[in-house]
Amino acid sequence: MTPPAIEIISSAQNPRVQLTRALIDQPKARRKHNLFVAEGARLVEEGLNSAFPLHFLLYKATHTDRVDDLLGRLGPGSPAFLLEDQLFDQISDTESSQGVLAVFSIPEPVLPEPLNLVLILDQLRDPGNLGTILRSAEAAGAQIVCLPPGTTDPWAPKVVRSGMGAHFRLPLLSWTWDAIAALTEGLPVYHADMAGESSYWQVDFTAPCAILIGGEAEGISPAGRQLATRTVRIPMIGQNESLNAAISASLLLFEVLRQRFGKRL
Amino acid sequence: MTPPAIEIISSAQNPRVQLTRALIDQPKARRKHNLFVAEGARLVEEGLNSAFPLHFLLYKATHTDRVDDLLGRLGPGSPAFLLEDQLFDQISDTESSQGVLAVFSIPEPVLPEPLNLVLILDQLRDPGNLGTILRSAEAAGAQIVCLPPGTTDPWAPKVVRSGMGAHFRLPLLSWTWDAIAALTEGLPVYHADMAGESSYWQVDFTAPCAILIGGEAEGISPAGRQLATRTVRIPMIGQNESLNAAISASLLLFEVLRQRFGKRL
Repeated sequence: MTPPAIEIISSAQNPRVQLTRALIDQPKARRKHNLFVAEGARLVEEGLNSAFPLHFLLYKATHTDRVDDLLGRLGPGSPAFLLEDQLFDQISDTESSQGVLAVFSIPEPVLPEPLNLVLILDQLRDPGNLGTILRSAEAAGAQIVCLPPGTTDPWAPKVVRSGMGAHFRLPLLSWTWDAIAALTEGLPVYHADMAGESSYWQVDFTAPCAILIGGEAEGISPAGRQLATRTVRIPMIGQNESLNAAISASLLLFEVLRQRFGKRL
Repeated sequence: MTPPAIEIISSAQNPRVQLTRALIDQPKARRKHNLFVAEGARLVEEGLNSAFPLHFLLYKATHTDRVDDLLGRLGPGSPAFLLEDQLFDQISDTESSQGVLAVFSIPEPVLPEPLNLVLILDQLRDPGNLGTILRSAEAAGAQIVCLPPGTTDPWAPKVVRSGMGAHFRLPLLSWTWDAIAALTEGLPVYHADMAGESSYWQVDFTAPCAILIGGEAEGISPAGRQLATRTVRIPMIGQNESLNAAISASLLLFEVLRQRFGKRL
């Protein structure tokens, strides 16, 4: 299949190349343009299947068959640009990009109604961990994820890669604490804490609720503590005092799923 | 408190410095000497509190009070060596080492009897993920972890760091498949698989068992498939087809804990 290339880019000064680089490296550029980069055939496919508007796509001469198929699906005149191999490799943040990346616009998140499962991530700093949590949250049926100030930018390339497509399906709200408090008003907010009042197996998660996870290094912030209405504990029988934040988040989310749908799934 | 220093090392050619470097970088060196490196005050403390024999400890002039306390606990004549700051920083793989690392011998693992919860990790390649699994496994009460050929070396620095001390408390068996099969003979071996026969909430985990987790990239190996006696599914309601391997492992291990001790913990 002939790729629908309409231009061959060889210069690092090309504006699309420069924009892509800025979007990969700088949170500020992502915020300013409201764009992010998805690398690799699988993520680009997911993006094209989603409601996210494609800004443009870059691919290199030496790409896989999967990228050929993907290019074939784009209509004529689509904003797909061929890059010289060396130039592409200088841009792409990942070794396994399969020779393709795409820049997507971040649409305004659509808030589901009524809310029944909200995840709030407070002071999460590790991009890989954040992406893993988003992947789990989407799988367990969280409706939205709130990212208050102090949590790392969810649109950074490493978060997007670890999210495995969750970014295209799960509304991500980088909101202030006030906005998050207004959104979750009336919902119980369960904070995962090693000294929590109840074991997470004993809490009744069948009613609508929010789950609040603190970061590994600094835990929960004062604002997060104020929002939480109840603490829940993950029981352990080893000597470790804590779990990785992505593990804690996933255990709670899948316990919600078990209590709500365990008999049917 | 005066550190029990008996030598100040300033040369990169020093044999202890060279050995430490080799142990950090080379799986082969770790296997040959049966030694590994724990970096940071917290991990070194856990090591000193464990049954693992200390081979030697290196620290730098600019270290934290916590390292002072730790040095104070070592008796006179202990193998603790002061390194010039710059040399220490060249060796240490982590930014948050707090100026201390220790080389420990890996003791012969003690096999618990009777076996009631065994974890088998097949083709796990990501060091951070492997460490996170070991941390969860220790917390959930796994007795031993089997690491067949093809799984990354659990004594690599990044695995040790993410393990958060689990290495000192959980026997890690880098064994052949034949040895693992002999060890788990008579136990049901549950393989986590997205197309599994039963949901993991429906399986009865109260009896002794083994849990087998495949790697993210390549999944389970033919030998792993042969060992597994049953497949279990983690139900999901999102569109993601899979979870991070550390998440899958943790969900299964904590479900075992819930079924066995949930009412008491």
